[in-house]
Amino acid sequence: MSQYSQILYEVDGPVATITLNRPEKLNAYTGQMMIEVIDALDQADADDGVRAIIFTGAGERAFCAGADLTPEGGGGPFSSDTKVDDLSDDSVRDGGGRLTLRLFQSTKPLISACNGVAVGVGATMQLPMDFRLASDTARFGFVFARRGIVPEAASSWFLPKIVGISQALEWCMTGRIFDAAEALHGGLVRSVHPADELMGAARMLAMEIAENTSAVSVAMTRAMLWRLSPAAHPMMAHRIDSRAIYRLSKGADAREGIESFLEKRAPDFPGKVTTDMPDFYPWWDEPGFE
Amino acid sequence: MSQYSQILYEVDGPVATITLNRPEKLNAYTGQMMIEVIDALDQADADDGVRAIIFTGAGERAFCAGADLTPEGGGGPFSSDTKVDDLSDDSVRDGGGRLTLRLFQSTKPLISACNGVAVGVGATMQLPMDFRLASDTARFGFVFARRGIVPEAASSWFLPKIVGISQALEWCMTGRIFDAAEALHGGLVRSVHPADELMGAARMLAMEIAENTSAVSVAMTRAMLWRLSPAAHPMMAHRIDSRAIYRLSKGADAREGIESFLEKRAPDFPGKVTTDMPDFYPWWDEPGFE
Amino acid sequence: MSQYSQILYEVDGPVATITLNRPEKLNAYTGQMMIEVIDALDQADADDGVRAIIFTGAGERAFCAGADLTPEGGGGPFSSDTKVDDLSDDSVRDGGGRLTLRLFQSTKPLISACNGVAVGVGATMQLPMDFRLASDTARFGFVFARRGIVPEAASSWFLPKIVGISQALEWCMTGRIFDAAEALHGGLVRSVHPADELMGAARMLAMEIAENTSAVSVAMTRAMLWRLSPAAHPMMAHRIDSRAIYRLSKGADAREGIESFLEKRAPDFPGKVTTDMPDFYPWWDEPGFE
Repeated sequence: MSQYSQILYEVDGPVATITLNRPEKLNAYTGQMMIEVIDALDQADADDGVRAIIFTGAGERAFCAGADLTPEGGGGPFSSDTKVDDLSDDSVRDGGGRLTLRLFQSTKPLISACNGVAVGVGATMQLPMDFRLASDTARFGFVFARRGIVPEAASSWFLPKIVGISQALEWCMTGRIFDAAEALHGGLVRSVHPADELMGAARMLAMEIAENTSAVSVAMTRAMLWRLSPAAHPMMAHRIDSRAIYRLSKGADAREGIESFLEKRAPDFPGKVTTDMPDFYPWWDEPGFE
Repeated sequence: MSQYSQILYEVDGPVATITLNRPEKLNAYTGQMMIEVIDALDQADADDGVRAIIFTGAGERAFCAGADLTPEGGGGPFSSDTKVDDLSDDSVRDGGGRLTLRLFQSTKPLISACNGVAVGVGATMQLPMDFRLASDTARFGFVFARRGIVPEAASSWFLPKIVGISQALEWCMTGRIFDAAEALHGGLVRSVHPADELMGAARMLAMEIAENTSAVSVAMTRAMLWRLSPAAHPMMAHRIDSRAIYRLSKGADAREGIESFLEKRAPDFPGKVTTDMPDFYPWWDEPGFE
Repeated sequence: MSQYSQILYEVDGPVATITLNRPEKLNAYTGQMMIEVIDALDQADADDGVRAIIFTGAGERAFCAGADLTPEGGGGPFSSDTKVDDLSDDSVRDGGGRLTLRLFQSTKPLISACNGVAVGVGATMQLPMDFRLASDTARFGFVFARRGIVPEAASSWFLPKIVGISQALEWCMTGRIFDAAEALHGGLVRSVHPADELMGAARMLAMEIAENTSAVSVAMTRAMLWRLSPAAHPMMAHRIDSRAIYRLSKGADAREGIESFLEKRAPDFPGKVTTDMPDFYPWWDEPGFE
């Protein structure tokens, strides 16, 4: 799938950018958009040249205004004609969650450059990203309770991890729309930027990672922090990081990391995520939809 | 139980208020007070007209000064005459925890309007509440280590979730009394208000929920955020929210949510918590005292 | 082991101080240093006179500059000659994690007085401590991705608990060095002090605990907050704190806690960690390295 109809996928040096591209619809989310973003993530994961992925929205008004509820957009979650009694049936799966679980599995750092309105799935899809930057024109809303539904896209798991249980409860129980300043104060975004500086700031962060770190280290770090932090005991982390240190410390990236540090020069790490992850990766069994 | 002796229960429009009502004792907590608050919560959950519950203390000095250690109050945890060897015996159960676990199960949003001193169980009973507002005269203390006991009422679970492990350790290990400003800075309360504006602010928050959201959505949101955020993997949330979206999106509240949004008017959600929760609710088995 | 070669262990009143003592090497971490710190922790746990432990680094430049990668230092994780295929072999265990898991098990409050550079294991070893204070000259770095390895010492578990997942991802994915102000803003340290006031502030905190609290209460509190906060449900905390209240409330420390409070005097708690922990302590099975 080299051509997408609802997103743009561009690679510039070590940085891929995925742009939600339905500006006339405020980049509202559709089933087709989900398929295309997941495909683009597969592309990026398979491309060792890509060291970080920036997400943004086309146009000046919106990042993503939520699920497209019109027939053209697939009607959001409200229009499914299929009826099943068995709620473990795969057709019950929420489309926002399919995307956020795929984002969760990314081996690349994910950076949101939230350039405008982000409500519903437009807000929740940003939660599995590692960095959230916003323009000062951004607005957010976890509006589900105002629509008679519930927080989706696994946001009941992601949002409290990011902003704490109290802030998550307030935003989800009131369903209110809030601005970039409240998002920053509440910990939803790491920084707020003038609109015309947003993409530059996101790219600067991507380049900081690309120029200084090992791709294998970053992919491992991403998996470890998201997956080990909920464990019941730090021993779980000790088991994984001991194995990782043992394997990686004998590798070419560790050698380059030390040498470049001692020589006070920028590193040039040879390791690739597609071929050089440690032999016990992944160490987990991904749970299914049951 | 329509008349209570140690609390007041009042309903004004969609907002119930539970007032700890022993002002001459600084509203100190007793076994009777526990029974009455739990009964009032049962009343509120059974009343679809109630959309939020505010908790406060009678008088100007205290929210709740902790367990009443006098014989009149039941002597707090220190006076039990029963002696058992089997620590799984139900009589071992801490009275603060019986209350906080009941608050945890509430289907209504809980708002604390902390109007004065809140120490010991007076502080920990506020932790399962969804919103904590304080007057600028409020003072807090997790004083257990200064009394030779330990944090109770399941606060070792609730407090780190709310304020982070470091702040929780500091307050519990020093046992110090701290003011509203420190509570705000540390994330224990969401906002601080002049004493005479506290109840108004709490009511405004309750009304924001009542006027804009679906009761069923809010009850589901409450259960999902508190119960799914500790899960080991976001798939657990995806399983629940997929089912909830599937069921609720075909219901009358979702229809009203969309219609009122498109018509730019306030919603009038018909759904009731007592009869309209999705068929898989509750999805959990509540663990017992073992 | 009364004399150490790479650390200092001093007891002054109720406060023990462990000083990483290789100032000419910026207190770089070695296998020998690990052994000595663990031994000092055993000493402190066995000494009921010690009520808190302060950690700092010798000299004015560094707390700990990370693993000593020179042959003298054991070469850090990179130099192991042993090769094993079975990654559950005990020799695979990361030395940073051996220390942080031992810190996790401490019965005494741990206070970091971070007086300078703290990178790699010099940063991660501070995470299981209960309080982190920094001088305004301190600098931190979770630099693993810049060295071609991964966050170690179970920091993928500790760091997100302390600073949240987003801040943890940013520091670990960029591997950047940051100053005390960023550490304070990000929640890594509780307070920043002029260099010459750092040890005084740490000692003041240690004394606040020593003079006001029960040692048994604090040891229990430490275990409860760290170990119960990750549980799936607050009932787990209710089971433990009910038993603890039941046992401790009949003890001498609770009696002294109440009496000293009523008499408005400083308490003098007789309980000792070595002999007076409740009979169900520890209530957990410590997981092994598997």
